[in-house]
Amino acid sequence: MTKVTAQLSVSLDGCYAGPRHDGGDWMASAEAKAFFRVTRWALTALAWRERQGLGGGEEDVNSAVIRESFEAAGAYVMGRRMADGGEVPWGEEPPFRASVFVVTHRPRPTLVRGGGTSFTYVTDGVASAVEQARAAAGGKDVAVAGGGELVRQVLAAGLLDELELHVVPVVLGTGSRLFDLDLAGEGIELTPTRVLHTPEVTHIRYRVDGRAPLVLDDRGGALGDR
Amino acid sequence: MTKVTAQLSVSLDGCYAGPRHDGGDWMASAEAKAFFRVTRWALTALAWRERQGLGGGEEDVNSAVIRESFEAAGAYVMGRRMADGGEVPWGEEPPFRASVFVVTHRPRPTLVRGGGTSFTYVTDGVASAVEQARAAAGGKDVAVAGGGELVRQVLAAGLLDELELHVVPVVLGTGSRLFDLDLAGEGIELTPTRVLHTPEVTHIRYRVDGRAPLVLDDRGGALGDR
Repeated sequence: MTKVTAQLSVSLDGCYAGPRHDGGDWMASAEAKAFFRVTRWALTALAWRERQGLGGGEEDVNSAVIRESFEAAGAYVMGRRMADGGEVPWGEEPPFRASVFVVTHRPRPTLVRGGGTSFTYVTDGVASAVEQARAAAGGKDVAVAGGGELVRQVLAAGLLDELELHVVPVVLGTGSRLFDLDLAGEGIELTPTRVLHTPEVTHIRYRVDGRAPLVLDDRGGALGDR
Repeated sequence: MTKVTAQLSVSLDGCYAGPRHDGGDWMASAEAKAFFRVTRWALTALAWRERQGLGGGEEDVNSAVIRESFEAAGAYVMGRRMADGGEVPWGEEPPFRASVFVVTHRPRPTLVRGGGTSFTYVTDGVASAVEQARAAAGGKDVAVAGGGELVRQVLAAGLLDELELHVVPVVLGTGSRLFDLDLAGEGIELTPTRVLHTPEVTHIRYRVDGRAPLVLDDRGGALGDR
């Protein structure tokens, strides 16, 4: 059955990039430097390198996690900013090899690339993009490719079934936080279903259970009476 | 050799409590509700219950993590707010059974309690409190007991050797974030040294390596040339 999944590299303090930088030279920004730091673990992974058309790399735990993620995805949902940023560097054969639904306000004809990748621009919201991706996924998963802002939106809208975080052992202190959300006194409850770790990164996969109120308890007193 | 350690329960988004609440009824605050949620995993742990004078509980992975933490500590450093908040509920035999050095601006005579616990009030800063605790630790570790604000200060000051996070699978969206820090374009690098997980909480222990600049890279291009 099709699940809606997301996976994202974050710092120990939940940032997927530095503070958002608009205009000017992005590569000189604090946003870029932090993004480079949290995604660096993937650069030596064979599965990532293959998809980017790069040689070399290792088939280790990190690579297996990436491979599994690519293979599980039947279609993608993507934020407009990520799609724009990737359009040139991904070139004629982007790494997705599937239909990508881009959430945007600007209508644009579908862009068909080589290797099975196409970009369809969806202007009627994130839920619609997820539904269109579901129809295109052929029973495989709908993967929210990013950026972090879209992952946050999908999570907040209650559309996400599974979230895998690649937790990188660095504290950034400030930046673009995946979970900067107003939940009105509730929490989003999850259940960890898999933990894999390497010195460079800890991969934690969660099932998303949904929103629940935060409540006080008796600090374990009742248990003592049993 | 004495290490300076800290361990703290945090949400998936790095909050140890809800938004800070001063004045009024703390137990009715969002700060309390979120704090209760992230520390709830400990309530059934035998090692925690024993120290609180409560019956029942289980000797599982979570309990073993807590037991180890209590046993490794030869002395504690604590924030003023936590010490004030605990003074009445901890009663005549607080759970620490060691010297506790409280970082405060208000001088006060040492408070000696039963079971080996004493509270010494340190008015010349966090580094001094850590040094006094080190002298009192008898070769065991100096544990930063909390709250989160003090853990953040000790980390930012470069005084922390080891950090264990108990990562609870809930997203709070907003709250008191352990890592809300201005690192001036640097990151604090760590190395994960142990990961233990249960359905309720993932325990990740880190060695703190220290501050390092965030830099761009060639996105793995050089590796492909090898």
